[in-house]
Amino acid sequence: MSRLNPVDLITKKRDGGEHTPEELHFLVQGMVDGSIPDYQLAAWAMAVYFQGMSDAEATQLTLAMANSGDTLDLRGALATGALAPGALIVDKHSSGGVGDKTTLAVGPIVAACGLPVGKMSGRGLSFSGGTIDKLESISGWSPDLSEERFRQQLQEIGLVIAGQTADLAPADKHLYALRDVTGTVPSLPLIAASIMSKKLAAGADAIVLDVKCGRGAFMENLDDARALARLMVAIGDGAGRKVTALITGMEQPLGNAVGNALEVQEAIETLHGRGPTDFQELVERVCAEMVLLGDPACGDLGAAQKRVREAIASGAALEKLVAFVAAQGGNPDEIRHPERLPRAPIARSLLAETAGFVHAIDAREIGLTVVELGGGRKRKGDAIDFGVGVVCQTKVGDRTTAGGALCTVYAADEASASIAVSRLRGAWRIADGPTAPLPVILDRITGD
Amino acid sequence: MSRLNPVDLITKKRDGGEHTPEELHFLVQGMVDGSIPDYQLAAWAMAVYFQGMSDAEATQLTLAMANSGDTLDLRGALATGALAPGALIVDKHSSGGVGDKTTLAVGPIVAACGLPVGKMSGRGLSFSGGTIDKLESISGWSPDLSEERFRQQLQEIGLVIAGQTADLAPADKHLYALRDVTGTVPSLPLIAASIMSKKLAAGADAIVLDVKCGRGAFMENLDDARALARLMVAIGDGAGRKVTALITGMEQPLGNAVGNALEVQEAIETLHGRGPTDFQELVERVCAEMVLLGDPACGDLGAAQKRVREAIASGAALEKLVAFVAAQGGNPDEIRHPERLPRAPIARSLLAETAGFVHAIDAREIGLTVVELGGGRKRKGDAIDFGVGVVCQTKVGDRTTAGGALCTVYAADEASASIAVSRLRGAWRIADGPTAPLPVILDRITGD
Repeated sequence: MSRLNPVDLITKKRDGGEHTPEELHFLVQGMVDGSIPDYQLAAWAMAVYFQGMSDAEATQLTLAMANSGDTLDLRGALATGALAPGALIVDKHSSGGVGDKTTLAVGPIVAACGLPVGKMSGRGLSFSGGTIDKLESISGWSPDLSEERFRQQLQEIGLVIAGQTADLAPADKHLYALRDVTGTVPSLPLIAASIMSKKLAAGADAIVLDVKCGRGAFMENLDDARALARLMVAIGDGAGRKVTALITGMEQPLGNAVGNALEVQEAIETLHGRGPTDFQELVERVCAEMVLLGDPACGDLGAAQKRVREAIASGAALEKLVAFVAAQGGNPDEIRHPERLPRAPIARSLLAETAGFVHAIDAREIGLTVVELGGGRKRKGDAIDFGVGVVCQTKVGDRTTAGGALCTVYAADEASASIAVSRLRGAWRIADGPTAPLPVILDRITGD
Repeated sequence: MSRLNPVDLITKKRDGGEHTPEELHFLVQGMVDGSIPDYQLAAWAMAVYFQGMSDAEATQLTLAMANSGDTLDLRGALATGALAPGALIVDKHSSGGVGDKTTLAVGPIVAACGLPVGKMSGRGLSFSGGTIDKLESISGWSPDLSEERFRQQLQEIGLVIAGQTADLAPADKHLYALRDVTGTVPSLPLIAASIMSKKLAAGADAIVLDVKCGRGAFMENLDDARALARLMVAIGDGAGRKVTALITGMEQPLGNAVGNALEVQEAIETLHGRGPTDFQELVERVCAEMVLLGDPACGDLGAAQKRVREAIASGAALEKLVAFVAAQGGNPDEIRHPERLPRAPIARSLLAETAGFVHAIDAREIGLTVVELGGGRKRKGDAIDFGVGVVCQTKVGDRTTAGGALCTVYAADEASASIAVSRLRGAWRIADGPTAPLPVILDRITGD
């Protein structure tokens, strides 16, 4: 076997060639051990941007990145017999967005349906919040678990959300940081490999992907989102995991609440079955897809949806959240009485100047406003004010009256509230004619 | 003016945008002062590879690189009145190749025609030899000149070839080294900017470019060579310099001799007017183009060629070489008696196995064989054996007889001679039918 050379691999991809699994393994190894300098990886990533990758290449790249560091063994963490015969451990992934608190609601519901959920989650940066940050607004709750406690809680409660202690897919961390500063982020195979490598390393047998599409998301049009979803399903297939991808709208914030404690409250409302229409629909659909993938005895999507609604209606899902929060040191009273969660002292509403219909809401602007209010980080390590945020009283399609509230800002003081309200005025586009509410689920892509 | 950001510039080029002069200046500044990391430059170079550059962009990039370090002022180095009114200082550039000793012959001829030639030259690496190495096979000759002696010799003799003491176009050095390891060498605008930035910094008013084309050269086909030549002429135009580009064949070695002292001997033969047909034709044409560009009183190309042939026939060109060699410490007797130049002790001929016609000679293989014999460097700093090399007795189109000599190897010992001869057997392709000799000048491209 001849010694591989980074320049030859760059040149091969530049000229439209297809990498062998051995070549991709060599590249990923070089990312992790530093033997391939960043300038060669950067040139290679730009060549991939222009020339693309076959499904087989993207799959091999993903597998190599997934195996570049620690991998979790969720199935091994469960006692024998804890999983029904044929049952799979299902994970979910969302490409994220403003107001995306899906994990907070989906985890308890799926666990209540009998499927164990064990996740490592991250913190937020810039306008997109992190699941761990949101959960930390519950007093006492901690993401720090030993391996033994992770295993025990997964076994006993069926739901664990821990901080990232394991070094999952370090090659992806390195490549992502490099792509971020070399104009090579928007490459479909590199995006797919980045997402899927982390999910494969996280140890689930099956994965439901929520690919956001729209002005507030990375994929701005449906064709691109479909192509990304198809590729990730194909990668899952090649890696021996079952994958279902939902393409969901991201033209406005998801649900009504943006801000840590406000989002926990909205997730609790959703476990009561009375979340905002769009968020309730998305959560129930993601849960149903997970149940359908994970439980071979489930039947069809309709049956899965029925089970999900029963887990909500019976209160089992809410009880699962209570048990999960308590197990990780949090105060369960705050789940039973969400009004006890942190809430900033100043509430100021943005009022509509004219009557009309809401035609658009700039989700990114809301996310950035919440960061400005102290609800997110500008830099790694910044402290977070859990009680601040924005709650939308109107969404796209809603009718407004002159002087009616479009949203409410929760702020630490009058001055920041006032700045936030005036900043948010530009985020709502109101026009005369009526317009339809935005669809939640745009498409669904499955393997075979 | 907003602060420029490397990621924005990479993204702009990736998406097919055109850089402003300010942006290109920022990139070149960042190459030189290290403020733009190599991984960003590498991604940008790959984006340029795919998206290309307009003539205006390539010109601005070239100008910024030319001004990134020292620049020579050849005109200023001459005393007032040393140059006829309207006369220009003309430089030449060859894209190089095996057996390319053009500068050794062109410099003295052009100087003998009354046009001053002052050059900084480099050493060779791998299969392509350097002018300084070749000249150092003359005992005593040295490329080390003070600025004062450079100026004085240019004034008095009209011909100086010095080592690279000035830091000409450091941005090009940095970018070229990076392109070499990131698969971004074969980008037309980057090649053109690299060549032209060094030429502009070297201070001539006008430049004759010898763009090699063929299997032994970087540009393998005529269309690519023409495109490169056109772009370099356009860059020269944009930089206020007159440029003529010749496209010349490089399917076989240039001339017959490959190896340092052997090439000096061949250059001397050419100054006597009896060089190998192809090399004599090329040298006379390059000289004529230089005279035509540099001397406004010259008339047309035919008149220029006549002056060149007179400078050879009168012995003025050879005398110029003698004076030049002596001025830089070399022994002029070795020019008058080239048989006194170093010659390796062992001569072994490669004999044709069958009669036929030479259809092809692999120039690169000959160059690599000479390096193996000790006539070139594998690594920077390696010592050179000036007397070794290869002299072709046959070129493409020549008839061979069974047992006739195809070439002669000059080696330090029997063992290396024997290895070289057997290696070279594969470099000659002999076939039954006759074939035409290869053309020397393929095309000519001028400004306006």
